[in-house]
Amino acid sequence: MKAFVYLGPGQKELQDRPKPEITAPTDAIVKVTKTTICGTDLHVLKGDVPTCQPGRILGHEGVGIVEKTGAAVTAFKAGDRVLISCISACGKCEYCRRQMYSHCSTGGWILGNSIDGTQAEFVRIPYADTSLYPIPEGADEEALVMLSDILPTGFECGVLNGKVAPGSSVAIVGAGPIGLAALLTAQFYSPARIIMIDLDANRLEVASRFGATAAVNSGDGKAVDAVMKLTGGRGVDTAIEAVGIPATFELCQKIVGVGGTIANIGVHGTKVDLHLENLWDRNITITTRLVDTASTPMLLSVVGSHKIDPKLLITHHFKLDRILDAYETFGHAANTRALKVIIEA
Amino acid sequence: MKAFVYLGPGQKELQDRPKPEITAPTDAIVKVTKTTICGTDLHVLKGDVPTCQPGRILGHEGVGIVEKTGAAVTAFKAGDRVLISCISACGKCEYCRRQMYSHCSTGGWILGNSIDGTQAEFVRIPYADTSLYPIPEGADEEALVMLSDILPTGFECGVLNGKVAPGSSVAIVGAGPIGLAALLTAQFYSPARIIMIDLDANRLEVASRFGATAAVNSGDGKAVDAVMKLTGGRGVDTAIEAVGIPATFELCQKIVGVGGTIANIGVHGTKVDLHLENLWDRNITITTRLVDTASTPMLLSVVGSHKIDPKLLITHHFKLDRILDAYETFGHAANTRALKVIIEA
Amino acid sequence: MKAFVYLGPGQKELQDRPKPEITAPTDAIVKVTKTTICGTDLHVLKGDVPTCQPGRILGHEGVGIVEKTGAAVTAFKAGDRVLISCISACGKCEYCRRQMYSHCSTGGWILGNSIDGTQAEFVRIPYADTSLYPIPEGADEEALVMLSDILPTGFECGVLNGKVAPGSSVAIVGAGPIGLAALLTAQFYSPARIIMIDLDANRLEVASRFGATAAVNSGDGKAVDAVMKLTGGRGVDTAIEAVGIPATFELCQKIVGVGGTIANIGVHGTKVDLHLENLWDRNITITTRLVDTASTPMLLSVVGSHKIDPKLLITHHFKLDRILDAYETFGHAANTRALKVIIEA
Amino acid sequence: MKAFVYLGPGQKELQDRPKPEITAPTDAIVKVTKTTICGTDLHVLKGDVPTCQPGRILGHEGVGIVEKTGAAVTAFKAGDRVLISCISACGKCEYCRRQMYSHCSTGGWILGNSIDGTQAEFVRIPYADTSLYPIPEGADEEALVMLSDILPTGFECGVLNGKVAPGSSVAIVGAGPIGLAALLTAQFYSPARIIMIDLDANRLEVASRFGATAAVNSGDGKAVDAVMKLTGGRGVDTAIEAVGIPATFELCQKIVGVGGTIANIGVHGTKVDLHLENLWDRNITITTRLVDTASTPMLLSVVGSHKIDPKLLITHHFKLDRILDAYETFGHAANTRALKVIIEA
Repeated sequence: MKAFVYLGPGQKELQDRPKPEITAPTDAIVKVTKTTICGTDLHVLKGDVPTCQPGRILGHEGVGIVEKTGAAVTAFKAGDRVLISCISACGKCEYCRRQMYSHCSTGGWILGNSIDGTQAEFVRIPYADTSLYPIPEGADEEALVMLSDILPTGFECGVLNGKVAPGSSVAIVGAGPIGLAALLTAQFYSPARIIMIDLDANRLEVASRFGATAAVNSGDGKAVDAVMKLTGGRGVDTAIEAVGIPATFELCQKIVGVGGTIANIGVHGTKVDLHLENLWDRNITITTRLVDTASTPMLLSVVGSHKIDPKLLITHHFKLDRILDAYETFGHAANTRALKVIIEA
Repeated sequence: MKAFVYLGPGQKELQDRPKPEITAPTDAIVKVTKTTICGTDLHVLKGDVPTCQPGRILGHEGVGIVEKTGAAVTAFKAGDRVLISCISACGKCEYCRRQMYSHCSTGGWILGNSIDGTQAEFVRIPYADTSLYPIPEGADEEALVMLSDILPTGFECGVLNGKVAPGSSVAIVGAGPIGLAALLTAQFYSPARIIMIDLDANRLEVASRFGATAAVNSGDGKAVDAVMKLTGGRGVDTAIEAVGIPATFELCQKIVGVGGTIANIGVHGTKVDLHLENLWDRNITITTRLVDTASTPMLLSVVGSHKIDPKLLITHHFKLDRILDAYETFGHAANTRALKVIIEA
Repeated sequence: MKAFVYLGPGQKELQDRPKPEITAPTDAIVKVTKTTICGTDLHVLKGDVPTCQPGRILGHEGVGIVEKTGAAVTAFKAGDRVLISCISACGKCEYCRRQMYSHCSTGGWILGNSIDGTQAEFVRIPYADTSLYPIPEGADEEALVMLSDILPTGFECGVLNGKVAPGSSVAIVGAGPIGLAALLTAQFYSPARIIMIDLDANRLEVASRFGATAAVNSGDGKAVDAVMKLTGGRGVDTAIEAVGIPATFELCQKIVGVGGTIANIGVHGTKVDLHLENLWDRNITITTRLVDTASTPMLLSVVGSHKIDPKLLITHHFKLDRILDAYETFGHAANTRALKVIIEA
Repeated sequence: MKAFVYLGPGQKELQDRPKPEITAPTDAIVKVTKTTICGTDLHVLKGDVPTCQPGRILGHEGVGIVEKTGAAVTAFKAGDRVLISCISACGKCEYCRRQMYSHCSTGGWILGNSIDGTQAEFVRIPYADTSLYPIPEGADEEALVMLSDILPTGFECGVLNGKVAPGSSVAIVGAGPIGLAALLTAQFYSPARIIMIDLDANRLEVASRFGATAAVNSGDGKAVDAVMKLTGGRGVDTAIEAVGIPATFELCQKIVGVGGTIANIGVHGTKVDLHLENLWDRNITITTRLVDTASTPMLLSVVGSHKIDPKLLITHHFKLDRILDAYETFGHAANTRALKVIIEA
């Protein structure tokens, strides 16, 4: 089968690889019909993710059709159309019991990382019963690709952790795909104000179309002033960090109001300054989280009721044999204006 | 009347001052029968608290007897025995409505800070109806002095924010009076394990008597190892920071387990390093808080049921005219083994 | 001044009455610009509310302009435009501290009940600082009349108590003004499904326009079947009772799913059957509540952000001197299709 | 093997039955070392539980040693000492994902009900990985038999659902084993007051030894007065119903305070009166629940830390071949003063 393989820092190839086989009774083999590329895949390609070794098929998102199931799989059978979660969950360990599937003691984010992933014609999914979701009849499968990772990430790490509430004020720092996913899902809770902050005018324009009530270009160094003006000097109830660098985390500390929450989504490569000398008495909360995809059933239900259209995030389409072009397009988003790209089998 | 006055960095005096007067209809004048000294008072005396200007009577804790009330005070009358909250709360503003009394728009921590405090024979209490509490019949008034500040601080900032729960594991970094208050109140929730960490062998011995299940002396630089050993390598569910320096906050980041909480109580003077490069995917929460004393009714109820004995924290007694000695004793706790000192009228 | 007065069961009159005076330093006198009629006013007129004695001016809703304030009022001054809460809250008692203003030990629902109310040219508001809300600049005052009682009632008693959540299923039994208020505010949380149940085809048609995803006419005795069909046989996550009779509470018990909540809003005059023989092992929750109006600031914020248009609930307008006609119209809603009627000074 | 078998209403026998076999890859066979009898077993014997047919081996509690495991079991192996949960949970279905294991779509309470149970030498446990718990080293196995059902039932249905909190007031109606389990576990949260209500002086005396702060004998019909006196006329924050008849549920409605919760544990055979005409405006919550045993890990941790001694509940011991005597003793608790009886292999 065709598969997109990481070959070491900066090296990648569409290869011909053997079809995966069932290796445990809880496995399923899924024929991937649509997949996509995540910012994390770009990190892997740079060599920044040591758990992912050369020779690995990348990808942790997608939808497909069950091809074969192990003896202990009871929830799915060949022919079922399924959504693949980016997180593999055994459903049994201490962390899975607490719905912290991201830290499953034998699973977590392993697809396209420590085991082969979804950017291929077929993929082996461990713990299929607790890592796949049936696609509801009549659902738009392409839209559901956004539920593998990006929507639950924006929702769980940003919106739920950030305690977004009716009438509250939210700022989202970073209007890339993850920030926009937070923007879309924050609206489930009817906050009064969602302020989007970025350096890229195009992305801010997209954010305004997606429901941001204000767009602040931080290029002039006056984002703090702008947020304070918009919030009557009080700062926001929720500041969502969706970039992953010290400067944006610093900005969140300056705009969060008394009693507010900074919900970190960004993948950080270095430590940041935490200004406890200012914040120790401000009754704030800071959260971090790797997506658990515990909210997938809820998100399927909301998407099914048309409260949100995840396809808004999809800007480009490619066939699997053009996946190198897809990476090119996704990797140069500033020029291509790419958000999420769909790769079809 | 006699009053202990801050006269500028390093300067202080027991002075004769005029008795306070009612200045607003919501005020009460309270005759102070017992007060105490807080670590914050030492900060003020060093000149570290700019809102507190020379000439200020210090102190924000105590019990006493209502002497006089303003026209709008309805909950108290002359002769009532009362507990004084360290936080003055108007009860009306946005923050008071959310029970975030610490950030009351016209109150908060003002006693012994921006207005005269309790280390005197009499004190004016603004917003008396919502800043004083009736002393229940038969209560031990001296014990209740611990409810002005230190117990609600340990409880709200450490235990509640730290989400201490039955069967959970807790580490408290810093076995001073505040850390010990967190230790006492953490036991309301029956955690399976409370690990106390400090450099002072005496304080750790006190902690063991107060209910710590393990005491770790961090002097050897191996506190992290010790905590990991005690928690089966998983780290603690709750790490309470009760010191206020970068090293102890750093320690908390190293011992908090996946899904855990770092609850900061310490008053920090400088920024700290936050290791988001390690913590971004660990599903942790960090909280800060200035005590709101919103839990005072609950604490009065628990103390009344003898689930806890706050007098354990009291080590020394002084008369008001010996308050300079009291400061001396409290300020050299390593030698005097002082925890809280009671100053009687 | 003109005032609408209850004179005993079935008797009422628009009378000339003296203007109210300040009687406590926490009072304000408000010139009422717009008020409305509540279902509870009809109960009073029938003689069903023993706390309301003949001679009482009715009404507990409205907006107006502050005329005069007592000496202890600090949040408002003459000339301020204000929203009047149906609940008077001292802000100090145990219940107010817990934000259960409805059970304020000296307040609660007293306006137009045990003290004179808002269906008059002027009204005395006790505890003005904690019972009035400033009208935000640019707000539509008529819309805000819906925030005195009906919207917080639907929201707090139905939506908050019912734990409506993104993707969840909700049924609202009763499509009168209160049920419709629950319908409007349930949408703050993006449930996947809101099923409206009533006997009146007109009201169900209104419900569909207000956002119900399904309308079930219970006239044929098959409402349970219809709800089960709509929920795949599982029943709803939230059943909101908005009528107040045994039959509708019974219906709620039949349609609530395992793990779900029955949130009662209805004012019940008799006991009901609770089928614990069926429900004891179904992990359900039943709640009751008198509106606290603790959510008023949140609702003002949501309304200000145009997430909801409370004016949808307003069907008729009358001048104060035509208030008897207004009662006639509101009291015969089945024929007049009245929801809420506005009475203007 | 020896097994205690239900043979139809009033009929039972210790029989010789074949050893159970693995029938699904997720099964385990457990050699039962200790089991016990539940009030529900008595209901079955009377013929009150239609899902339990004649020929069924009873029992849903116990500890034992794994004998054999199916191919998909990964958490246990032969020789492991295990605690058996009364609830079998697939860990995969919608309800298990929400930790509502009691309503597992293919499990729930099936042991000793729709499949053979634990009152035998061996038992087949379906979904072993998510229905057994490893016994911690050094634990007292006999004490842990109380964690199969009775302690999680008292804790989840009574204490957690009842929102018992530090300083709060609790009344438990019914001082049988389940009420006493609620009493023991309520103390995890340090309520100020736990009032135990029963007709049996002996059981009340036991309750006092177990930590009740007051014991009320309801035989004189004045229990409501007694509770009101003990709570300053306000009623309790939490009323736990641990009997299951209309009279006790009625009592709970009379003693619950404004804003309080009635947590039902009792198994009810008939409907009860719910006095919504009194309660509709009292801001109360009523909950029902079949135990989920979701709290088992927490309870194992608390028991391991010696915060509670579950063996207090054990009054009698029998060998398996004397199980008819054990039933006799347990079935006549008023005379024998039996709480829980241990049956050893």
